[in-house]
Amino acid sequence: MPSRYLNFRCSVPWLLLLLQTLFLIRSFLGFPGVSDIYSPSDFYPEFQDVNHMVIFGFGFFLMVLRRYGFSSTGFNFLLIVLGVQCSVLVEDCLVFLRAQQNEVGMKSLAKAVVSMTAVIISTGAVLGKANPVQLIVMTLVEIIFFFVSRCINRTFLQIPDHLTLMHVHLFGAYFGLAVTSRFPEPPPGLDKNRSNPKSDLFSMLGTVFVWVFWPSFNSILVDSKGKAVFNTYLALAVSAVAAFMLSALTSKDGKFRMTHIHSAVLAGGVTVSYTAHSIQHPWIAMILGLLGTVITILGSHCLQRCFNPALKLQDTSGVHFTFGLPAVLGAVAAVVLCVVEKGIDKQWNDLSSLGYLIFVDIGAFCQTVCTALVTGLITGLILNIKLLKAVHASKYFDDQFYWEFPHLSVGF
Amino acid sequence: MPSRYLNFRCSVPWLLLLLQTLFLIRSFLGFPGVSDIYSPSDFYPEFQDVNHMVIFGFGFFLMVLRRYGFSSTGFNFLLIVLGVQCSVLVEDCLVFLRAQQNEVGMKSLAKAVVSMTAVIISTGAVLGKANPVQLIVMTLVEIIFFFVSRCINRTFLQIPDHLTLMHVHLFGAYFGLAVTSRFPEPPPGLDKNRSNPKSDLFSMLGTVFVWVFWPSFNSILVDSKGKAVFNTYLALAVSAVAAFMLSALTSKDGKFRMTHIHSAVLAGGVTVSYTAHSIQHPWIAMILGLLGTVITILGSHCLQRCFNPALKLQDTSGVHFTFGLPAVLGAVAAVVLCVVEKGIDKQWNDLSSLGYLIFVDIGAFCQTVCTALVTGLITGLILNIKLLKAVHASKYFDDQFYWEFPHLSVGF
Amino acid sequence: MPSRYLNFRCSVPWLLLLLQTLFLIRSFLGFPGVSDIYSPSDFYPEFQDVNHMVIFGFGFFLMVLRRYGFSSTGFNFLLIVLGVQCSVLVEDCLVFLRAQQNEVGMKSLAKAVVSMTAVIISTGAVLGKANPVQLIVMTLVEIIFFFVSRCINRTFLQIPDHLTLMHVHLFGAYFGLAVTSRFPEPPPGLDKNRSNPKSDLFSMLGTVFVWVFWPSFNSILVDSKGKAVFNTYLALAVSAVAAFMLSALTSKDGKFRMTHIHSAVLAGGVTVSYTAHSIQHPWIAMILGLLGTVITILGSHCLQRCFNPALKLQDTSGVHFTFGLPAVLGAVAAVVLCVVEKGIDKQWNDLSSLGYLIFVDIGAFCQTVCTALVTGLITGLILNIKLLKAVHASKYFDDQFYWEFPHLSVGF
Repeated sequence: MPSRYLNFRCSVPWLLLLLQTLFLIRSFLGFPGVSDIYSPSDFYPEFQDVNHMVIFGFGFFLMVLRRYGFSSTGFNFLLIVLGVQCSVLVEDCLVFLRAQQNEVGMKSLAKAVVSMTAVIISTGAVLGKANPVQLIVMTLVEIIFFFVSRCINRTFLQIPDHLTLMHVHLFGAYFGLAVTSRFPEPPPGLDKNRSNPKSDLFSMLGTVFVWVFWPSFNSILVDSKGKAVFNTYLALAVSAVAAFMLSALTSKDGKFRMTHIHSAVLAGGVTVSYTAHSIQHPWIAMILGLLGTVITILGSHCLQRCFNPALKLQDTSGVHFTFGLPAVLGAVAAVVLCVVEKGIDKQWNDLSSLGYLIFVDIGAFCQTVCTALVTGLITGLILNIKLLKAVHASKYFDDQFYWEFPHLSVGF
Repeated sequence: MPSRYLNFRCSVPWLLLLLQTLFLIRSFLGFPGVSDIYSPSDFYPEFQDVNHMVIFGFGFFLMVLRRYGFSSTGFNFLLIVLGVQCSVLVEDCLVFLRAQQNEVGMKSLAKAVVSMTAVIISTGAVLGKANPVQLIVMTLVEIIFFFVSRCINRTFLQIPDHLTLMHVHLFGAYFGLAVTSRFPEPPPGLDKNRSNPKSDLFSMLGTVFVWVFWPSFNSILVDSKGKAVFNTYLALAVSAVAAFMLSALTSKDGKFRMTHIHSAVLAGGVTVSYTAHSIQHPWIAMILGLLGTVITILGSHCLQRCFNPALKLQDTSGVHFTFGLPAVLGAVAAVVLCVVEKGIDKQWNDLSSLGYLIFVDIGAFCQTVCTALVTGLITGLILNIKLLKAVHASKYFDDQFYWEFPHLSVGF
Repeated sequence: MPSRYLNFRCSVPWLLLLLQTLFLIRSFLGFPGVSDIYSPSDFYPEFQDVNHMVIFGFGFFLMVLRRYGFSSTGFNFLLIVLGVQCSVLVEDCLVFLRAQQNEVGMKSLAKAVVSMTAVIISTGAVLGKANPVQLIVMTLVEIIFFFVSRCINRTFLQIPDHLTLMHVHLFGAYFGLAVTSRFPEPPPGLDKNRSNPKSDLFSMLGTVFVWVFWPSFNSILVDSKGKAVFNTYLALAVSAVAAFMLSALTSKDGKFRMTHIHSAVLAGGVTVSYTAHSIQHPWIAMILGLLGTVITILGSHCLQRCFNPALKLQDTSGVHFTFGLPAVLGAVAAVVLCVVEKGIDKQWNDLSSLGYLIFVDIGAFCQTVCTALVTGLITGLILNIKLLKAVHASKYFDDQFYWEFPHLSVGF
């Protein structure tokens, strides 16, 4: 009974209603007095940039499948508006448990929107394979675990709050990979998991949007905004040049490959996300951007040929090499840069404090990756229980199981 | 002689020339000294947002017909650049008649752009049915009557200026409905008044743009910007979640319907447009967003099945339920919230002043809707006189009567 | 051996690597201390606007060919990220040679992005005819010559720095024309140099983007930002109205032609680019916007019928009438306005100083055009040497020589 199997009428609406009621009750009870939340926000333009990038940019960035355009943008939109509210709720609970001080209003919204990037990245890994119910459950679980992971980093390792948020790429990518490993592989003959020129063009549109707004993303929560913007811009520029260079070098006939451009132009932005506010010389940001692209393009070849088939992974939009590997590189670079700077400062005398510094940064990195992988695996198992009506693998990557098509032709 | 019938060479250019000459003369005579107009504008980013939303966002938002993409964006663009100049001219005339004080420069432009939303909404109701001459005449007439309606509200009912502007959605929707009721219905066999996946995708692109910039739209002219932005964002978020929820609940098989998403995600923004700057608790904005979506989706079913066929209305892009009904709800909510707040303030003692308050708000609401309906009907009659060369109903919804197609295929 | 002929594997990547290494070395050696570059930038929103307009807007604005969508956006993106770095490098060299004072950080980046407009405009003239190697070489050469031309204007003619930058449109258009005149004409039967409805729609999307952000472009480097924004907005609005008017007047059957709209709505912005910050009365800006559109649309008819065939020019996206002619008009208008203003100021007594003023402005204009034409011709000759593997004329205007198409259908 395939048609009843895919009927979400009894699940999606009620799940959404339940969640929305929860958020309303929490908003009724939880928000403090009006004077606090409505403080004037001087960073509205940056917030607008990041919001635009996350909702519009990533929505079209994910439009890489030729029959999955409605779902790519539509579900991205749904998950963000849901996740932002959920994120504010979770943060409120943590405040209640005294794990952190209270921040309200636009700042709280901005943090929620930045956190949502982790969910969007994970969504990219299961793109076309998870149904709306699975995506909603995944969003909720991931938001909660990401907050827990941030909380550990902040409380036990004393990482500043805005840096814990920059683990979004790392957490999102490895959580998504772990989740997607629990989904059955599509049958070999299925050819819907490819792009066509139109979807590539829309995806390019989204990529350029994300690229343009990335400096705002990296600078929204830091104090030295000017520095973060300038370093991120340089890293992104070098990254884009290197993406074209390596794409022509690694492909047949020296032609450019659109998927390389999509994934690699953003690598620089991911790589410098940890350090954009603290890098002292522009050339360091440029080198990081270059290395980010190198690792992304080489990674895309290695992972797709060796790693993914071996582990039977299917990472639809390539989040592992687009966001995962550059984030790992960025985390390592942050440790190196921090140690070198502190070392030069103190003329390499106080080696024990340097060791502690390395231990803390590596610890935060390992804790984030491990939490992401373990919770991702658990989430993947939960998502594939019978109750959530997982889509059969032969029906992956297709809009028409989720959207009404009153059109004569469904060829797009 | 159908080809001569549709030749606009003798009408459109000369009409545009006439109007543009008028605006130039007015600009030559009317603008005050340079020191006034060029005062530094601290709200340029917000103006840019609203301008972008109105020209780009609404242009693609209206691209819901599969053979009407050029006209949707092109005519939207033409009407806005024309209407903004016209709006500044009308405001200047009112200043001359001492109906209001003078405001110049960017502020005047911002008001003009916000006013144009009424025209865009009305355009949505006659989308594909009105030819360029009819659209230009409609723009001029509507801008004038909207200013008259605002003037009555401001002068006789003492409504603040920025609130009279927020009647744009109400005025635009009911004016458009009244106008479209005077247009002949398309023949039953015509299948061009539908979308296809490509037009739906472009429309989604425009919708997301409008959604993202809506907080700027609601906050551009108010004093407490932070509050207006925050409340609008929450209302929009709840609205979007509810749109997906109700779309899955009301459609066959629990699938999502793209037209529901298009119209309902914006409902929250429309509903809180009157009250975003004054709502004291976020949960009120969230409830309003939820109710806005409920009324939009239920309205879309009721109106399209019962109301529209009974009145022989054809509301191409559904402005009645997308903008009309949420605006009615918003106006009612504004009265209720204002009365409750004032009532609590004065412990329900001063009932007569409360009654006066209700009378004024309801009066402004009724006056706006009545003016919109009556002037809309008159405009609809004027637009269908022979001089304006109304398009025959069998030729509705088609780009190729207005645009040159030097292409081989016109299949888009 | 046509397939080897078009293999860019041995040229593009190594050229990019060489350039990127150069920029890295220069960044390592050249940038001054950290305190200077990372000064807080209060004009980040405007920079963001201009950056967005140049990368996203122009990328889609140039998508006028039906089989050249990937290259239009992709190469535009590559050339900008490359050119911005190159531009900063060239400016640094000029500082080293004491030709101008040092400006660093965001301001330097903003100037680089504005300068890149010249390259983008030139790219439009050779769109579809130049291969990536030729485009990269052209970018480098043009950036250098544009800096030399600006340097001459600034040093010998004492033109203010931000005005020398506004020669971008003039320089870009005539440089591009001269370059394209050295490319062989496409064979008569080739029908790929046309648009289709889809490419027109994407191009409209880009055009609206560029239109909306043009006020930021004209005001980013001037002091009286409010005035520049207001005048530019008015000029653009009148320009758009006039574009629709003249399009309906000059085309068959009074229909609108999409290519007219694309090119003419921007004419007003180009025309007032020299004078937006100094115009004292809005009606002057409006008249300039009107004249800009008139010259663009008349120019498009005259040039395409008489001038281009006579000179065997093929200006793919019409940069001569889109940017060249309005820029000439703007330069003339700037001289006239300046002389009239100064003349009225001094009651036409000091005629010799007026004469000097005219001489300087006309000199700067002539110098820019001459440098553009001469260096463009030389560049065109260089680009067609055998080493750069010019594409054969029968293979113009096609994505598939530069991009991998793993798709079954390449019909877009």
